[in-house]
Amino acid sequence: MTENTAAPTVRLQFKPDGAAVVVPAGETISSAAAQAGVFIALPCGGRGTCGNCRVKVLSGDVAPPTEAEVSLLSEKHLEAGVRLACQTLVYSDAVIEVPQSSRALERKEISLLRRREYTVCPNVCHCVAEVGEATLGNQQSDLARLRDELTEHMDVPPSIQALRALPGAVRNSGGRVRVAGVNGRIVSITPAAERDGIYGAAVDIGTTTVVGYLFDLSTGEYLASAASYNPQAQHGADVISRINFALTEHDGLAQLQAEAISVVNEVIERAAAQVQVETRHIFEVTIVGNTCMHHLVLGLDPAHLGASPYVPVVDEAIDVEARDLGLAVNQSANVHFLPVIAGFVGADTVGVILAAELVGQPRPVLAVDIGTNGEVALWSGSELFVASCAAGPAFEGAQIQHGMRAGPGAIERVDVQDGDLVIHTIGGLSAVGICGSGLFDAVAALLDLGLLDVTGRYAPDGAVSGRAAGRLEGEGTARRVELAHAAETADRTPVLLTQTDIRKVQLAKGAVRAAVELLLRRAGLAPEDLSEVLLAGAFGNYVNPRSALRIGLLPTTLEPEQVRGIGNAAGAGAVLALLSVEERRRAEELAARAIHVELFNSPDFQDVFADAMFFP
Amino acid sequence: MTENTAAPTVRLQFKPDGAAVVVPAGETISSAAAQAGVFIALPCGGRGTCGNCRVKVLSGDVAPPTEAEVSLLSEKHLEAGVRLACQTLVYSDAVIEVPQSSRALERKEISLLRRREYTVCPNVCHCVAEVGEATLGNQQSDLARLRDELTEHMDVPPSIQALRALPGAVRNSGGRVRVAGVNGRIVSITPAAERDGIYGAAVDIGTTTVVGYLFDLSTGEYLASAASYNPQAQHGADVISRINFALTEHDGLAQLQAEAISVVNEVIERAAAQVQVETRHIFEVTIVGNTCMHHLVLGLDPAHLGASPYVPVVDEAIDVEARDLGLAVNQSANVHFLPVIAGFVGADTVGVILAAELVGQPRPVLAVDIGTNGEVALWSGSELFVASCAAGPAFEGAQIQHGMRAGPGAIERVDVQDGDLVIHTIGGLSAVGICGSGLFDAVAALLDLGLLDVTGRYAPDGAVSGRAAGRLEGEGTARRVELAHAAETADRTPVLLTQTDIRKVQLAKGAVRAAVELLLRRAGLAPEDLSEVLLAGAFGNYVNPRSALRIGLLPTTLEPEQVRGIGNAAGAGAVLALLSVEERRRAEELAARAIHVELFNSPDFQDVFADAMFFP
Repeated sequence: MTENTAAPTVRLQFKPDGAAVVVPAGETISSAAAQAGVFIALPCGGRGTCGNCRVKVLSGDVAPPTEAEVSLLSEKHLEAGVRLACQTLVYSDAVIEVPQSSRALERKEISLLRRREYTVCPNVCHCVAEVGEATLGNQQSDLARLRDELTEHMDVPPSIQALRALPGAVRNSGGRVRVAGVNGRIVSITPAAERDGIYGAAVDIGTTTVVGYLFDLSTGEYLASAASYNPQAQHGADVISRINFALTEHDGLAQLQAEAISVVNEVIERAAAQVQVETRHIFEVTIVGNTCMHHLVLGLDPAHLGASPYVPVVDEAIDVEARDLGLAVNQSANVHFLPVIAGFVGADTVGVILAAELVGQPRPVLAVDIGTNGEVALWSGSELFVASCAAGPAFEGAQIQHGMRAGPGAIERVDVQDGDLVIHTIGGLSAVGICGSGLFDAVAALLDLGLLDVTGRYAPDGAVSGRAAGRLEGEGTARRVELAHAAETADRTPVLLTQTDIRKVQLAKGAVRAAVELLLRRAGLAPEDLSEVLLAGAFGNYVNPRSALRIGLLPTTLEPEQVRGIGNAAGAGAVLALLSVEERRRAEELAARAIHVELFNSPDFQDVFADAMFFP
Repeated sequence: MTENTAAPTVRLQFKPDGAAVVVPAGETISSAAAQAGVFIALPCGGRGTCGNCRVKVLSGDVAPPTEAEVSLLSEKHLEAGVRLACQTLVYSDAVIEVPQSSRALERKEISLLRRREYTVCPNVCHCVAEVGEATLGNQQSDLARLRDELTEHMDVPPSIQALRALPGAVRNSGGRVRVAGVNGRIVSITPAAERDGIYGAAVDIGTTTVVGYLFDLSTGEYLASAASYNPQAQHGADVISRINFALTEHDGLAQLQAEAISVVNEVIERAAAQVQVETRHIFEVTIVGNTCMHHLVLGLDPAHLGASPYVPVVDEAIDVEARDLGLAVNQSANVHFLPVIAGFVGADTVGVILAAELVGQPRPVLAVDIGTNGEVALWSGSELFVASCAAGPAFEGAQIQHGMRAGPGAIERVDVQDGDLVIHTIGGLSAVGICGSGLFDAVAALLDLGLLDVTGRYAPDGAVSGRAAGRLEGEGTARRVELAHAAETADRTPVLLTQTDIRKVQLAKGAVRAAVELLLRRAGLAPEDLSEVLLAGAFGNYVNPRSALRIGLLPTTLEPEQVRGIGNAAGAGAVLALLSVEERRRAEELAARAIHVELFNSPDFQDVFADAMFFP
């Protein structure tokens, strides 16, 4: 045991990806892992009843097995150091192995892909060939002898890098070489004896969060994923602040690009490390992101995105060599950027439309991707409309007094029980603040309890009774509800939701709702024509549809059953484009047919927006 | 005047290319220029009678105008510093401008091209486009608006470098941009107002000499050329020594590649400087060279060229981006390497066959490219045969006691007059040594005078009479002829030709002749079937056909009129591939149809070679 006095901390390292974190001694492995960005699946909510979160303690001092562990793990396993991450407290620096089976890998968007039909036909081709020996009777060049063994499909010109590797590869392998081709060019020739394969990565680069997915391109099999925060956030939470940074700082664009590339590399490397894949065997990368992120990753000047008429440098799909971006994959890998639609409707929206199979549905469907910038796509049954709206960062917990991202200790759910609020935090930890899904629930609950009226004003003292009423205090814009009492929080100060916070939620949801209404009008549809609303994005994943309807984010004609979270569908779109050139072509068709509706140009925008700010 | 005592030297710099040289004070400008690698055309042989070699003295102290200058130049010109390079002696450091019109630009191979028909259709396309302004009513991306203005031909995907330049180019030029495309990709977008153009360079990289040619690709116009020595020569004169260096030295291949690239860059930069072209406007480069040089420029392991079965890594034509080679042209430029045929029959031979239009001639034609490695190509009237032979460096003056390259002071011609030898040196300077063409003439003259017998042995004392007999002296392998007496030479020691030198010439010419004989046999032809023999290469340019026949380099059935020097036809082939994708395709067809005859495999090689060593 660590014998330090007062607030001892311990360092945990997670294998095989190598992520590490320093936490107070006595934390559970699962909580520490979450803080290190290693997501362990806790189907039972960390109550020690399912036995899913098995990890192996490779070194370090941990608490003895709990009753739950003794009943769920065999003696042999316990002796080998196998433990349940949700049960095991850590007292010293430790190294913990987290097997694939325990990771929260089955992200919602991966499930989305498993339900969707597509043909695995990646842009990368490869084969193993036996190259005949040269003789005085057959003085053909090394390449000519290799070509004799290649199918027409693979019989393409070599890159200079592949050519340089050719004579050694042929002679060091008894003639057995592995050949990989990208974009109609042979880019890699290696001795076939080497343990290598052909892998691909799909990346969704968000303003806040970046997610990478690793696939085996020879089988289309999903291998691993990893997520990280976008380090550009230090220059501002939204795309406008990034654009301003690029415009005003010396080498601002170069710096933002370097940060984007570093986090893309990080998620790819971490995903690859989980399954011991060498990144030089990654031959294709697909990338989605909003138009600003798209431009910043590519090193394209984003200045003209930020000012009317908000035009991108490029909207079509583009292919770039990995080395031109500094990506830490095979330097000849092709990096495919899905097309963007407009300055504020990016490749991420194209990914959502592609993955959710919006187009072609028999009845009208709406897809909403909620983030700092919200995008709405409406399939009318015959046409595809898209719009963007500036929701602001409130839904991500920013600019809310006690707002925070969806991390450990965030209030992620608020229920009403016996006339009072009941909070649930991520990881079941003491409350630290409130994240987006908690905010939706809290506002819905406050409306249900009568503590908020339809205009968004807190009820005056004495106007409501019940236990929750006691949480109201203060006056004017400082009037507030105490969501978590001091005793329930990590720092022993209450978590509050102020009148100003409520106003920010109203502005945010009003912007999204107005976009929905205006797209419906443009398509000549009424809200009741919608068969379904798909909520994309990490946020859409966790928000309670009932709360989303209760606060009026979506038309109240919808039933909660018609609102469905589909996870990071933008990332799923990137995966589809990675696995299938057919889907890649489809993405281009979808982007080309999308009708972009510029809301600020809409004469009824102000009216609709004002209406949309009220609560139902 | 420079007032240094004893052997004062002066430094001359030549504009606009910037080449410089240090020479003894009192040299002529033309002689100094030749030593600096600046070739001034002297149609009258430097006798001051044609007035072609006009230059402008920008600074420095020179002798007053000669009578020749006063009669050939106007007073106005003389006042402006215009002089004749062959007449003007330099006494101090000076800066001399050499106009295009005075340069020896009309190289023989350029004349060859002027007589040949071809369509100018380079691999580079370009246009000027007017890009419409973006508005809220037309929110198309910058690229989409550019595409609206491009013809189908130019409507190809952009490189990331071009995309990065796009928003600035459009907005800094009032929408008028110049677009350049290479290999089906837009690689450059610049404001059209800039003074720029689309240029290309063709390079012949020889074991000894590297020549670069600059062309305007929008018109196909020839602009300039420059030549330099291959710095790899420090590691050995022939390709075998280069291969050994690559094999045995640490980073040997990398060093040889760097040297090759540096000299290619030098000739391109010097040619471009002559006509004030910025090298970043060079978008296409074509390269020919023997297979070893081809591999070394590309950074391909040449090891397997040097050992049986002598196979290249690649033989087909290949395209590489300039930046992958470190070429100092536009980084997105395409560098096209013409195909090679075999380990010792390279892209230079393909260039000769292409430029000389060998294939398709109604009657059998032979092309011989003589260098350290000799290549022979025979068009039989229906088939194309090629072979290589190891002539050794004797023809380039190496390994000959007083041998030297064809530079100032080299004995380049030997005549018989009044029963004695009369020598002519390059630049009319005091003799320094003897170069290849002089060697041919000297041996032919010695045979004519009876000083040499058919076996290549010098006549014994007293066996011959006449004035030349007095030049014979010494015994055995040291027996020699004094070609230049001490009084005629630069260092006041005689220039000799020894019995051993004669043996080396015999080995060299025997190798070439044997290759010719064996190809004729393989084609089922007799020497008298040949309609013509083309001598390619700088050497073939200067050799006297009569001497070549006299010493038996070529079948004696030929008349001197049937032997024609065609200059650096390999370079001309590179030019054709630069100017025309049709010619490029033709080069690939020619390489594919060439039948490579491996002479060492030939059962009668030894016999034929032994025969070929005798003099006729």
